[in-house]
Amino acid sequence: MKIEEAQSTIREMLPDKRYRHSLGVSETAGKLAARFGADVDKARLAGMLHDIVKYFPDKKLKQLIEQHPNISNEYLSYSNNLWHAPAGAAYVEQTLGVKDRDILNAIIYHTTGKKDMTRLEKIIFLADYIEPGRDFPGVEDVRKAAENSLDEAVFEELWRTITHLLDQHQRVYPDTFFAYNDLVGSQNNQ
Amino acid sequence: MKIEEAQSTIREMLPDKRYRHSLGVSETAGKLAARFGADVDKARLAGMLHDIVKYFPDKKLKQLIEQHPNISNEYLSYSNNLWHAPAGAAYVEQTLGVKDRDILNAIIYHTTGKKDMTRLEKIIFLADYIEPGRDFPGVEDVRKAAENSLDEAVFEELWRTITHLLDQHQRVYPDTFFAYNDLVGSQNNQ
Repeated sequence: MKIEEAQSTIREMLPDKRYRHSLGVSETAGKLAARFGADVDKARLAGMLHDIVKYFPDKKLKQLIEQHPNISNEYLSYSNNLWHAPAGAAYVEQTLGVKDRDILNAIIYHTTGKKDMTRLEKIIFLADYIEPGRDFPGVEDVRKAAENSLDEAVFEELWRTITHLLDQHQRVYPDTFFAYNDLVGSQNNQ
Repeated sequence: MKIEEAQSTIREMLPDKRYRHSLGVSETAGKLAARFGADVDKARLAGMLHDIVKYFPDKKLKQLIEQHPNISNEYLSYSNNLWHAPAGAAYVEQTLGVKDRDILNAIIYHTTGKKDMTRLEKIIFLADYIEPGRDFPGVEDVRKAAENSLDEAVFEELWRTITHLLDQHQRVYPDTFFAYNDLVGSQNNQ
């Protein structure tokens, strides 16, 4: 799938603000890929498509997850804020014909992260957090870390995400916690 | 094993301060058991024995874990601060002849916690944190919670433990994190 085609597809499926966010993630992912030695085209395409089903009703997201043979149903026991990521990968694969596993996995894990992320998975996870439209306390620190170290920036994002969930007394998806443990102390070893 | 026998055994094995801590945990565990409907004798005995191998060398703790058929080797991939808990249960079982699974499990999980803890497991986990000799920021809040709700106090302890580990950029043992997720929102449902 070409990037222009992905862009015109999401233009029809997302409200303006989310569309602009997706353009931002795509552009940021491309820059990060160039900076850290990943495939720029894959990064831009995964970034463009990552939120494609964000405005589908929960029932539809649930179906996409349940009917996919390789996507964990564990997501359904956690916040519905997480569902659009695996459901988006299922949709992109089944409806848009994207078969590239690197791209599909980067979409699946863009919200939760996971242990042993690939470089592309880290890039989409990070780009979603730091694209230029994002504005919340701490985002500048993560942007700064991302200038030098992919692992350090991803660790910082995981740390902030888990800390925020704890502050709210919310559950943490296990993959997010395993991603944190995985990157403790490794920020300077990428 | 009788409580007096356990007390004289640990008297020989622990430095004064840790011995007094063990007496405090035993006493506090007995009170919590009476308050929340668990077996008082088991709680006092588990509290007395919980730190019995705390001053064994790491090599010995490692052996106790590795040689026990039912204790996870996963502990050995995490901080050695965690080893004395499962190793203590193995020692108590093998050397002192304690066979009661409730007591052994309460010792195993007293540092990490776990998902679906029994009442006795929660009591030892909590008593270790709030016994009268403990003095650190926040302990009063947990003591106060423990006056009314076992789950609320255990949740508060888990929350503080994980927050502290995050602040230090340290890894969190998976059981601790699963215990936290398990008790989110259930504090008022015990």
